[in-house]
Amino acid sequence: MQVFELGERAIVERIRKLLGNPDIGDDCGFIRIGDEILVATSDMLHQKTDFPPQMSGYQIGWMSAAVSLSDLAAMGAKPTGMLFAIGLPGDTETGFLDEIIRGIKTCADHASTRVIGGDLDAHDELTIVGTAIGSVKRENIMYRSGARENDLVCVTGSLGGAGAALFALKQGIKCPADLLAKLFEPTPRIREGSTLAESKAVTSAMDISDGLAASLHELSRANENIGFKIYAEKIPTHPKISQILKPKEALKVALYEGGDFELLFTVPKEKIKILHEEIDLTIIGKVTKKNILIEETTIEGKTCVKPLNEKGYEHLRHRPQTRSRPQDPITDTNTKFDITKY
Amino acid sequence: MQVFELGERAIVERIRKLLGNPDIGDDCGFIRIGDEILVATSDMLHQKTDFPPQMSGYQIGWMSAAVSLSDLAAMGAKPTGMLFAIGLPGDTETGFLDEIIRGIKTCADHASTRVIGGDLDAHDELTIVGTAIGSVKRENIMYRSGARENDLVCVTGSLGGAGAALFALKQGIKCPADLLAKLFEPTPRIREGSTLAESKAVTSAMDISDGLAASLHELSRANENIGFKIYAEKIPTHPKISQILKPKEALKVALYEGGDFELLFTVPKEKIKILHEEIDLTIIGKVTKKNILIEETTIEGKTCVKPLNEKGYEHLRHRPQTRSRPQDPITDTNTKFDITKY
Repeated sequence: MQVFELGERAIVERIRKLLGNPDIGDDCGFIRIGDEILVATSDMLHQKTDFPPQMSGYQIGWMSAAVSLSDLAAMGAKPTGMLFAIGLPGDTETGFLDEIIRGIKTCADHASTRVIGGDLDAHDELTIVGTAIGSVKRENIMYRSGARENDLVCVTGSLGGAGAALFALKQGIKCPADLLAKLFEPTPRIREGSTLAESKAVTSAMDISDGLAASLHELSRANENIGFKIYAEKIPTHPKISQILKPKEALKVALYEGGDFELLFTVPKEKIKILHEEIDLTIIGKVTKKNILIEETTIEGKTCVKPLNEKGYEHLRHRPQTRSRPQDPITDTNTKFDITKY
Repeated sequence: MQVFELGERAIVERIRKLLGNPDIGDDCGFIRIGDEILVATSDMLHQKTDFPPQMSGYQIGWMSAAVSLSDLAAMGAKPTGMLFAIGLPGDTETGFLDEIIRGIKTCADHASTRVIGGDLDAHDELTIVGTAIGSVKRENIMYRSGARENDLVCVTGSLGGAGAALFALKQGIKCPADLLAKLFEPTPRIREGSTLAESKAVTSAMDISDGLAASLHELSRANENIGFKIYAEKIPTHPKISQILKPKEALKVALYEGGDFELLFTVPKEKIKILHEEIDLTIIGKVTKKNILIEETTIEGKTCVKPLNEKGYEHLRHRPQTRSRPQDPITDTNTKFDITKY
């Protein structure tokens, strides 16, 4: 059997068993050092699926740093250093590499960390593996598991910005600069993650890199016997989305498209007030006993509750075309530009 | 200007300046945490240059772990965890992935560490980035700099085994199993590195992944105003090399071919005795004021001292061919199988 027939979750499960380490599967790995937990995460990005031609070198660098920093943020860890293994095609211009490095540095600076090392290699396809190392106090760390019935479900920032920008690029529609920035220069929520962790109020957390719906399903799998009820009207879609999409479409993008590096977390009701004062968050629903439901208001003003499908994109199921050179990943329909894979 | 016209050292220098972190350039990055120094390193390996067809999945996995662990060993750090970002081609069989994971696990077990996380991705070319994280007491850490005139120059284990095995594979000569193991399953010298660090006797250290001559030049660059005098007869060539190469050729391979993941280090004379009792080491020369010289005995019995050329292989200068599919990296002369790049 071929790996791609299995899907990512089954492969990770297989690897976890082979390695005999039950902790593997979350986005980060942990090492306990006294009162601190060292958190580390690696992410592989490459030309064909992650760097569309509209992306500048600076944005490629920024994104390569941001995806791993977002994983740290989800656990409440503060980054202490980053490593980058960079595989460069033979015809890479030094100016382009400089731009990548500048993007990496600016994102690392933004998260108050720095690059401590890495590796350079010749590679047919531009490939960047960023590794972020961080730490968080043992009593503060946020895991995916821990959500309890009646906890509030919250997200930071706004959703759908990255998905809407991708839609605009695909359709050749003019896209507002701040939507494009959501897609190509997402802000890892380090400060927010750290604040949430220090509050000790959060019962479970993860980042929404795979889309809100997929992340809710993921969170439900990480917690036994819980579900969610989400209120569609509460979902904070990005204010500029309306320039590109109608409200119904905007909601779909916010639910099912990835690339929004916001945090999804659960908090007991009595502890929400203090968090509200510290970070930009929105309550979008509550933790229930089972099922993942979404409540919407129909045009006729009726309340309608229905299951929220996962529509999760497992990228290892999408078998890539073998090509001799990278194609335009956005305009070429045979190649999927994948913003839901981190 | 294109990156590949610069060569690796110039690129690293450029990146170091752009990042504003003068520590970058050694194989590992450092983070100070109290009395401990956290050491981390990432290495990118991929099909075309690192995994010849004679290499099994198990060996690919082992090698991917060994290269980064060797970097930790050179600093005297004990590994605390590893991450692997693995890019898999579309037609990868699950059994092959299992073998890679088994190789990774066995090597990690051997170094008393474990895999704590990673990333899986679809990629046209099998690409593995291993990251090793370790720690070492602040007062014990070994750097490349610190060598002093008259210190003894030492290596662990034996040299030339990997290079001789590669030669045998290229020529289609039968190769003893333990030479092949030196090439495909090198042992990262974690125990030796740790013992050397704890002895506090070592003044400078690095691993010999790029070949002894290149490593001596690298060590000389890391130390101001020092050189080396190496005695050819002292170099511990692998005992099985004689089955494949004549003594002169064996010496060349030991000097100029990479892939031997042994440690190269300098120690003051008065401290060598205690190390001799603890690890398998050979004194091959001494630290001098300048130049890197090698003393050989000619066939006529004369002593001859000459400069030891670097013959360092900077892999980024070797521009890879762009191909639609991986070639046999050993038998295809257009593609260099590179054992000197870690």
